[in-house]
Amino acid sequence: MSIVADVPVRFRDFDSFGHVNNAVYATYCEQARVKFFEEALDVPLPELSIVVAHLELDYRAPIEGVGSVQVEVEAGELGTTSFPLYYELSYEGDVVATGETIQVAMDDSGTPREIPASWRAALEE
Amino acid sequence: MSIVADVPVRFRDFDSFGHVNNAVYATYCEQARVKFFEEALDVPLPELSIVVAHLELDYRAPIEGVGSVQVEVEAGELGTTSFPLYYELSYEGDVVATGETIQVAMDDSGTPREIPASWRAALEE
Amino acid sequence: MSIVADVPVRFRDFDSFGHVNNAVYATYCEQARVKFFEEALDVPLPELSIVVAHLELDYRAPIEGVGSVQVEVEAGELGTTSFPLYYELSYEGDVVATGETIQVAMDDSGTPREIPASWRAALEE
Amino acid sequence: MSIVADVPVRFRDFDSFGHVNNAVYATYCEQARVKFFEEALDVPLPELSIVVAHLELDYRAPIEGVGSVQVEVEAGELGTTSFPLYYELSYEGDVVATGETIQVAMDDSGTPREIPASWRAALEE
Repeated sequence: MSIVADVPVRFRDFDSFGHVNNAVYATYCEQARVKFFEEALDVPLPELSIVVAHLELDYRAPIEGVGSVQVEVEAGELGTTSFPLYYELSYEGDVVATGETIQVAMDDSGTPREIPASWRAALEE
Repeated sequence: MSIVADVPVRFRDFDSFGHVNNAVYATYCEQARVKFFEEALDVPLPELSIVVAHLELDYRAPIEGVGSVQVEVEAGELGTTSFPLYYELSYEGDVVATGETIQVAMDDSGTPREIPASWRAALEE
Repeated sequence: MSIVADVPVRFRDFDSFGHVNNAVYATYCEQARVKFFEEALDVPLPELSIVVAHLELDYRAPIEGVGSVQVEVEAGELGTTSFPLYYELSYEGDVVATGETIQVAMDDSGTPREIPASWRAALEE
Repeated sequence: MSIVADVPVRFRDFDSFGHVNNAVYATYCEQARVKFFEEALDVPLPELSIVVAHLELDYRAPIEGVGSVQVEVEAGELGTTSFPLYYELSYEGDVVATGETIQVAMDDSGTPREIPASWRAALEE
């Protein structure tokens, strides 16, 4: 399962260096993740019992204009309670960053639980 | 060289899950990095020719209140043009996240350059 | 002169009440203002010597989903050195807020100056 | 009743003009409002049934450094269901902005209700 989300850059995303602040790339990934979960699992992010346990970003080129960033998201190999998502961020046709997050499925008490079978099927599609 | 920065949590840092959004931890690290560079190199961040090439965060516990986060920053082993910073974020005495960024020294044309000797001395202190 | 900008809501725009934080409406207006200036004056915001001297927002309804906000921007009557912009923010067909900003044209030394004739013509169009 | 909140400026608050973005002033006011409600009403903001119906900001001078902003908050004359808060933001001893918000007390169904007597007493103190 993979999707591409188009995330318009905002003027507020820039910092005083005149390019998109490094922390904002994590927000671009989050925005793509919301779309991924809606499309893959048909569940809006706010209702998902998932926590992000790990975030990793490699910055290749600055984003200096106010167009949009295309964020491709793809699920990696699923563990028992956790699974990775991989991100590729492009701007004007060039890859400007790649990233990874690790998500953990949680039960209502905040304890990791097995990834539900329905999610597993959808994520492995 | 290591420092501890005290970063007050803002209400705006929370997301609809009621805890500090994962992207905001990168901003907490940035805020600590600004202080680190001012104290270590006596150079304000906006004047430093440095880019963040890599960011990594491990989330251990949610931050759910509006106190402050203590961010310890420590320089790791320096390369020729790049060097790592390690972060430990604590909230109410507990470590809530650890992180790492890799910085690259740049010349005016945007090409990596050797870390200046004065920085090297200060960072290795 | 008036335009409508479509600004997608981000998950990061929500606060712990589960709706778009009130400060973010100012960012939605800014995003629309960027588009307005590009279309009206054919000048990207970062190159405009304009400061925002006043901001006013009236909130009518919360924004609770992650669709887009339509922001209509219209120039009001121009003064000698300043001019107002009026905003109407809609979400799913309903007006959720109205706003106003007052902009002042500045010269290079940071002193208010007369609105250039070319801007005046474009804004009064 | 009035309080002063000290809000440290973050590097992320700056935009590509190199000064604190105008929308962020609303966040500084919010941060001061959180403190105001905790001290005046002894209620954390997230538990208050209050909505912000109106926001107004007058910008007098840019904020260009990373010190802190002092935000003085004072309650104005209370209406039946709503009340104003007035803000004065200072940076390095100079007033850089003034502002106002109007809050409306809400019941559980989202309908305006009379300001509780205990709040009224505390706010008029």
